[in-house]
Amino acid sequence: MIQTDKFHEECGIVGVYGNPDAANLVYLGLYALQHRGQEASGIVTHDGKIFYQEKGTGLVADVFRAKKLGALRGSVSIGHNRYSTSGTLANVQPLMGSSSHGTIAMAHNGNLVNAVSLREELEVEGAVFQSTVDSEVILHLLARSSGNTLIERISHGLSKVRGAYSLLFLAQEGLIGVRDPHGVRPLLLGKLKEGYVLASESCVFDLIEAELIRDIEPGEVVKIDENGVTSYKPFPKSMPTAQCVFEFVYFARPDSVIFSQSVCDVRKRLGWELAKEAPVDADIVIAVPDSGVLAALGFAEVAKIPYDVGLIRNHYVGRTFIEPKESIRHFGVRVKLNAIKSVLQGKRVVVVDDSIVRGTTSQKIVKMIRAAGAKEIHVRVSSPPILSPCFYGIDTPTREELVASSQSVEEIRKRLTADSLQYLSVDGMFRAVYKNTSGSNKDFCAACFTEQYPIALDEQKSHQFSLFDNLISSDKVK
Amino acid sequence: MIQTDKFHEECGIVGVYGNPDAANLVYLGLYALQHRGQEASGIVTHDGKIFYQEKGTGLVADVFRAKKLGALRGSVSIGHNRYSTSGTLANVQPLMGSSSHGTIAMAHNGNLVNAVSLREELEVEGAVFQSTVDSEVILHLLARSSGNTLIERISHGLSKVRGAYSLLFLAQEGLIGVRDPHGVRPLLLGKLKEGYVLASESCVFDLIEAELIRDIEPGEVVKIDENGVTSYKPFPKSMPTAQCVFEFVYFARPDSVIFSQSVCDVRKRLGWELAKEAPVDADIVIAVPDSGVLAALGFAEVAKIPYDVGLIRNHYVGRTFIEPKESIRHFGVRVKLNAIKSVLQGKRVVVVDDSIVRGTTSQKIVKMIRAAGAKEIHVRVSSPPILSPCFYGIDTPTREELVASSQSVEEIRKRLTADSLQYLSVDGMFRAVYKNTSGSNKDFCAACFTEQYPIALDEQKSHQFSLFDNLISSDKVK
Amino acid sequence: MIQTDKFHEECGIVGVYGNPDAANLVYLGLYALQHRGQEASGIVTHDGKIFYQEKGTGLVADVFRAKKLGALRGSVSIGHNRYSTSGTLANVQPLMGSSSHGTIAMAHNGNLVNAVSLREELEVEGAVFQSTVDSEVILHLLARSSGNTLIERISHGLSKVRGAYSLLFLAQEGLIGVRDPHGVRPLLLGKLKEGYVLASESCVFDLIEAELIRDIEPGEVVKIDENGVTSYKPFPKSMPTAQCVFEFVYFARPDSVIFSQSVCDVRKRLGWELAKEAPVDADIVIAVPDSGVLAALGFAEVAKIPYDVGLIRNHYVGRTFIEPKESIRHFGVRVKLNAIKSVLQGKRVVVVDDSIVRGTTSQKIVKMIRAAGAKEIHVRVSSPPILSPCFYGIDTPTREELVASSQSVEEIRKRLTADSLQYLSVDGMFRAVYKNTSGSNKDFCAACFTEQYPIALDEQKSHQFSLFDNLISSDKVK
Amino acid sequence: MIQTDKFHEECGIVGVYGNPDAANLVYLGLYALQHRGQEASGIVTHDGKIFYQEKGTGLVADVFRAKKLGALRGSVSIGHNRYSTSGTLANVQPLMGSSSHGTIAMAHNGNLVNAVSLREELEVEGAVFQSTVDSEVILHLLARSSGNTLIERISHGLSKVRGAYSLLFLAQEGLIGVRDPHGVRPLLLGKLKEGYVLASESCVFDLIEAELIRDIEPGEVVKIDENGVTSYKPFPKSMPTAQCVFEFVYFARPDSVIFSQSVCDVRKRLGWELAKEAPVDADIVIAVPDSGVLAALGFAEVAKIPYDVGLIRNHYVGRTFIEPKESIRHFGVRVKLNAIKSVLQGKRVVVVDDSIVRGTTSQKIVKMIRAAGAKEIHVRVSSPPILSPCFYGIDTPTREELVASSQSVEEIRKRLTADSLQYLSVDGMFRAVYKNTSGSNKDFCAACFTEQYPIALDEQKSHQFSLFDNLISSDKVK
Repeated sequence: MIQTDKFHEECGIVGVYGNPDAANLVYLGLYALQHRGQEASGIVTHDGKIFYQEKGTGLVADVFRAKKLGALRGSVSIGHNRYSTSGTLANVQPLMGSSSHGTIAMAHNGNLVNAVSLREELEVEGAVFQSTVDSEVILHLLARSSGNTLIERISHGLSKVRGAYSLLFLAQEGLIGVRDPHGVRPLLLGKLKEGYVLASESCVFDLIEAELIRDIEPGEVVKIDENGVTSYKPFPKSMPTAQCVFEFVYFARPDSVIFSQSVCDVRKRLGWELAKEAPVDADIVIAVPDSGVLAALGFAEVAKIPYDVGLIRNHYVGRTFIEPKESIRHFGVRVKLNAIKSVLQGKRVVVVDDSIVRGTTSQKIVKMIRAAGAKEIHVRVSSPPILSPCFYGIDTPTREELVASSQSVEEIRKRLTADSLQYLSVDGMFRAVYKNTSGSNKDFCAACFTEQYPIALDEQKSHQFSLFDNLISSDKVK
Repeated sequence: MIQTDKFHEECGIVGVYGNPDAANLVYLGLYALQHRGQEASGIVTHDGKIFYQEKGTGLVADVFRAKKLGALRGSVSIGHNRYSTSGTLANVQPLMGSSSHGTIAMAHNGNLVNAVSLREELEVEGAVFQSTVDSEVILHLLARSSGNTLIERISHGLSKVRGAYSLLFLAQEGLIGVRDPHGVRPLLLGKLKEGYVLASESCVFDLIEAELIRDIEPGEVVKIDENGVTSYKPFPKSMPTAQCVFEFVYFARPDSVIFSQSVCDVRKRLGWELAKEAPVDADIVIAVPDSGVLAALGFAEVAKIPYDVGLIRNHYVGRTFIEPKESIRHFGVRVKLNAIKSVLQGKRVVVVDDSIVRGTTSQKIVKMIRAAGAKEIHVRVSSPPILSPCFYGIDTPTREELVASSQSVEEIRKRLTADSLQYLSVDGMFRAVYKNTSGSNKDFCAACFTEQYPIALDEQKSHQFSLFDNLISSDKVK
Repeated sequence: MIQTDKFHEECGIVGVYGNPDAANLVYLGLYALQHRGQEASGIVTHDGKIFYQEKGTGLVADVFRAKKLGALRGSVSIGHNRYSTSGTLANVQPLMGSSSHGTIAMAHNGNLVNAVSLREELEVEGAVFQSTVDSEVILHLLARSSGNTLIERISHGLSKVRGAYSLLFLAQEGLIGVRDPHGVRPLLLGKLKEGYVLASESCVFDLIEAELIRDIEPGEVVKIDENGVTSYKPFPKSMPTAQCVFEFVYFARPDSVIFSQSVCDVRKRLGWELAKEAPVDADIVIAVPDSGVLAALGFAEVAKIPYDVGLIRNHYVGRTFIEPKESIRHFGVRVKLNAIKSVLQGKRVVVVDDSIVRGTTSQKIVKMIRAAGAKEIHVRVSSPPILSPCFYGIDTPTREELVASSQSVEEIRKRLTADSLQYLSVDGMFRAVYKNTSGSNKDFCAACFTEQYPIALDEQKSHQFSLFDNLISSDKVK
Repeated sequence: MIQTDKFHEECGIVGVYGNPDAANLVYLGLYALQHRGQEASGIVTHDGKIFYQEKGTGLVADVFRAKKLGALRGSVSIGHNRYSTSGTLANVQPLMGSSSHGTIAMAHNGNLVNAVSLREELEVEGAVFQSTVDSEVILHLLARSSGNTLIERISHGLSKVRGAYSLLFLAQEGLIGVRDPHGVRPLLLGKLKEGYVLASESCVFDLIEAELIRDIEPGEVVKIDENGVTSYKPFPKSMPTAQCVFEFVYFARPDSVIFSQSVCDVRKRLGWELAKEAPVDADIVIAVPDSGVLAALGFAEVAKIPYDVGLIRNHYVGRTFIEPKESIRHFGVRVKLNAIKSVLQGKRVVVVDDSIVRGTTSQKIVKMIRAAGAKEIHVRVSSPPILSPCFYGIDTPTREELVASSQSVEEIRKRLTADSLQYLSVDGMFRAVYKNTSGSNKDFCAACFTEQYPIALDEQKSHQFSLFDNLISSDKVK
């Protein structure tokens, strides 16, 4: 039930303070957050004197072998999972830097929108950058910040930064967690039997037997040290909250609580609203596993059509699948999914998916269901059409690749060869999120569905990453 | 929806004849069969002159890298997946041997019950064994067989063998498939656009776009060569059919058709019968994912209780998980499964699982559901209590480890701390399998539930593997 | 001073009996014998009950990691180094087999000349071969041998075998060493403080602090068990001794004693004789390092010309050197060797090499010396022209590739662009070996120089390996 | 003849400009320079737009696989070999940094003595350091330098740096080579058929068929771009030349020309002077291979005692040797070296070594020669006693570990159990270096022998590296 491949959140982050097994707990936390970034990960610990670091590309279990984990000593630790198709090991977080304020390690979930101009300014002042990730500007801003305390330096440094950032810092002073003033990405505080934990999602707490205390609030900075948890609110209060609604739609694990709600519940309600908005006369409701299952259950419940399992997912499919030769290729979807003939044969089928990106996978799924004998195929999508990319930390394709940016619903339906296709409306989505009937939104970013970006984008934005990527381009580490 | 870790079938096998991409297709087939054995695999091909071989331990995608797969030339190929916790690379199948009849490669799914005595006899006659797998005796019997044709030699050689065996042979003469006279393990024939395929389950055919023709029949030998498919029935007809019912209960993929039935359909009917036999007043029905989902759906349907998702499975969990330190261990189940509080809170919950082996995992699941706030927990198992090990190819624990071999249902319920526990009856299981009301069985082996073994076991059986394992014990290949 | 790449002995073997560190000592012994075979190695141990095995391709230090070595328990062990450019892991020795006489492990140095016909006979009798190495026939002969004791079975089994074989067996009965009746390959017995050691060369004894006792004699079988060392002479006495003279010329380490003589001393005497036969007026004598150094020193001593270092060898060159692109290739020799201009400039140089195989390397060396400014270059070779391949265990090129098989010395000189070229005569070689003036030979095989093969070759000999190699051809293990 | 393990130069560097195979040529150059640093290496190339980078730990041939080398596009390239027992991949050079002046890559051979204070100053100004190597300060100084051209910025930046540095820079502007004003480490310019090459030693030029043009002079900066080679002399002229004499004694390859002399010639003359200063009545002169061979030849020549080979070196010994168990350990030296009894038996032996560091290896060698039957053992060392560590780029042990820092020659002799021991005098060393009779020195640093350091050391020097190493301490990359 954990999505694996539709598109990608940039990162998951975990920090532990005050536990002798800090590295082990962070490792388990990263394990639980692999759906947020599974291509590279790193852990830094501190034992009061020395920082220890392990980084690598690959799944968490491949990066950290027993021996290595044991070498990460100390009772404070932060870790980071990253989705990344390119870049050097220098880009794998946590980033570390040494400055006149000492050494600091940092893990960042989100994306900065003024990183290019900040980087240019810093370079003019003599800064030397060693990675191509936007997050590195924060390290330099902190090094140049004149505050007397780490909290002052963080507050001052971040005051120049614009964009989405949930951050963890590990320094001599303790463990610090930050959520940007808009609160785009989640970050939660939990209590361990011994010590504290900060993480992107509450599923981490369930795994390591921590108790969920609360969300870090938008614009809040928390410091965890020997005096416990101290909260700071250093940012101006005027900024609107803009939590990412797509975390509910697709990214977060359904067993997580984020933004003060159960992801599972929201998804089911998305199915409810979808069934109300887009009813259809059919024999069964099936899901595109795993991400569509909860909305499909919700849809079935309201539509009073039996839920069934019509598609099977093969979870042995890893990232290293060898694409076969030309003559037998295009196996991508079928290696992952298979249709069950005995379920679908002769049926009028509602297929619920959480979203449609390029449309190619959906098309293959419809064909697969058709080949299995379905009489009618009604595609229902539990979110609105994706019109525009995310610039706040989700690796969406370009606008050109998003099928809904240029095609009408009817055009997409034809492309999918479905008998009908309906998306959930934006209002319907917010009715589900807010559990009310108004469908109005005040706390969420839904820019990918509405093209209304709550954090202003720099003009040069679209060139940002290609510029950075030119700096260093090889040095992949196996 | 594909089970990964409860217990283990020994093997999955695939063979392709007459396709220029034979190795690639076998590779895809092994990919689809990893639930039958995921710790080692091998592929052999033949290009009319030379045999090519790749073997290794690990997941299919790790064993076969693009380059290697390309080196496996030829239009005929067989492959094998193996579950194995010990043994040398020499034990990884397909086994190959060279004799006066030429070179032959063999892949075996199942387990022989007279391998020890056969091996002893063969050794007295001068045979030299180089692996510790029971299957190797077949290579030696074939080498000593006096038949004029490969089919005669196979028929003659196998006449001495007793046990469960679905076999693939690759030789100069072509591709041969064999199913033992009892038909314990499945083996199916499919038609590719170009050429033929033999495989343990029909899900292989779906993936490589082959058309399912039929089961190889118990006791049937098929030879596929330039003349097409030829069928032989060399074994005496008196032997009773004894297809493994556990393939339906747990092993086979739900999207497969085996023993002429959809596995998905059988599993749902197991849920129906369970709901009839063991009704309970409850608020929701949840499954232990992934293997319990279909029976849970069936249960919910008959019981008219809503099906819901109460447990989430993390599919990123691989075999290399590092068990953390003593102080935070026992994470095994929670790394894989998590309970959703918002679903379970205050509910009377029916939890459907396909089977209970040692009881330890079930106990942890019950506790996890209880901790998530469930008011009542009613465990329902869609198969009868497992009383006794399998000797025909499934890696069950010893009788001592099987919780139901020594404890009553009530004792197990207490151990699980469940409010109620009920298993499906043997009759109920067969009503589901046969879609009738009698519950009588004539074609299946259910020895693990009934202790009635259809193929006589040798007395020394229990010592067999420890004897073999002493021969060679290290030499694991990474 | 240890040759690395000219051509290759097939193997080095070591066995230890009665020492608690048996595997470690065998490992060290294999380390010392890597010049005899550096592409694959294996160790088997026995702890009285269980056999332990590790095998792999690559250098000894890569195959055996600390952890693995620790897993090889027991006080008896045998090991094997192999040079091999092809073949499966099944071909890496020690070979193991299980028969009615129990399990046995075997390591073989040498080459059998009737392996093809023996294999055919054995296969007709029902034997199944699982490797493509000639040595496997011995395992089958032993399994079929009717003797009451292991020594009887070995004696009886080997009576059918013809060729070169120094063998080690590890069985329940103890450690057995065998040298073939002709004594082609060396095998020596040493005494450890605790236990005994058998090895291909005495340099093993120096490393592990064993005392050299004596050569195992041609045709001798020794058994080492709790009763100490027992000697057997099971073979007919009429066979002529034919020790490989090339072990002195090139293969053995100069610090070894084999065939009762110091290799270093023989090599220096080869230089003496060469200086007497082929004097030249020159300024300096240099060697092609490392294998030509001792003969060069001997030459310089007799010729009364100063020895100098004119060529430097880069020992960092491993097997994994990446051949650069077309435009800058042919770096092979220069990566390994470099000429010192300040030594060679304006000099008349005698270059001493131990042998010339294809002539291509020698040609490059002459050109390199010429480019460094040498005025005259006189190549002197401390062995006769190689006319014919070895069939007794050295991996010589085919006759066609041996430059001296088709070209006169003068033609070779022109090809090398040397000012003069002279080889040592066969008589000169034997004067050096026997320290006398006659030059007559009675104990050595010099077939590669004389084309007189002391062990008759089967007619089909030349097809032998290609036949075997067709059986299995991929499955290389990293 | 290339030393491998006595102690370690920090680095070797190679740069190529204007050749389409730049990365391949740099790779070959690094291959030739592995004696200067064999534990990590990196290559950076530039194709006019993009920088490409590969780094890794291990031997050159292990770091760069064919595929990777091909990915390093462009006609300009620099590479670096490093000896290092600790540190993160971030410490592997070439270092890269991006600043307002663009991206630059840098490779450094040598060691800075004011890196700690410079780093502190830079950090106060806001610099963020990401490695723990002293060289990184140079990147920051350049980024802060206000010069208009790269040469001005390099000149200005380096004006603050004190210590030993031969540097290569790769930037948009071209390839830059720098040798510090003292000229401690070598750096030479060569001409390729197409393009230019800069390297630490001339052996690189021999390998890639470049012509040696000249040394880069102390204090010289050369820029190579489309206008050819331009020379700059930006540093004050008053600084004394202080070339490392130990490059002649031990480090450089004997086939190299550095500091305008053949290393081979200097070494032989060291032997001459040693024979004059420390004559002895003996039967043979042997070398400790490989580094002592040339001095031994020189000694033998002057002493008129025959040179012989008494110790054999096993070149298969790699870095991964497994130290056996306690009971059989201390094999270190014997795995590498073995004595030849037939040469040494009954002889009075002069053993020539290039230097003695801790004395432990020498002691084992003397014992080994004694055990081989030598009657007398006279150790002669072709350099003076090492009294003090190097702070300019050689990884010498601490003063406490240097046997000659606290013990007299007679005490060392006793420790070695040699019959006599004599070192070359400092004057004798300089007579050999200058080919004259005065023994006076004006161009070389001999601080390790004389304790007179030509570049002033900071007081805190001894704490420098431990300070740095605390910053980051794990993250080793396999």
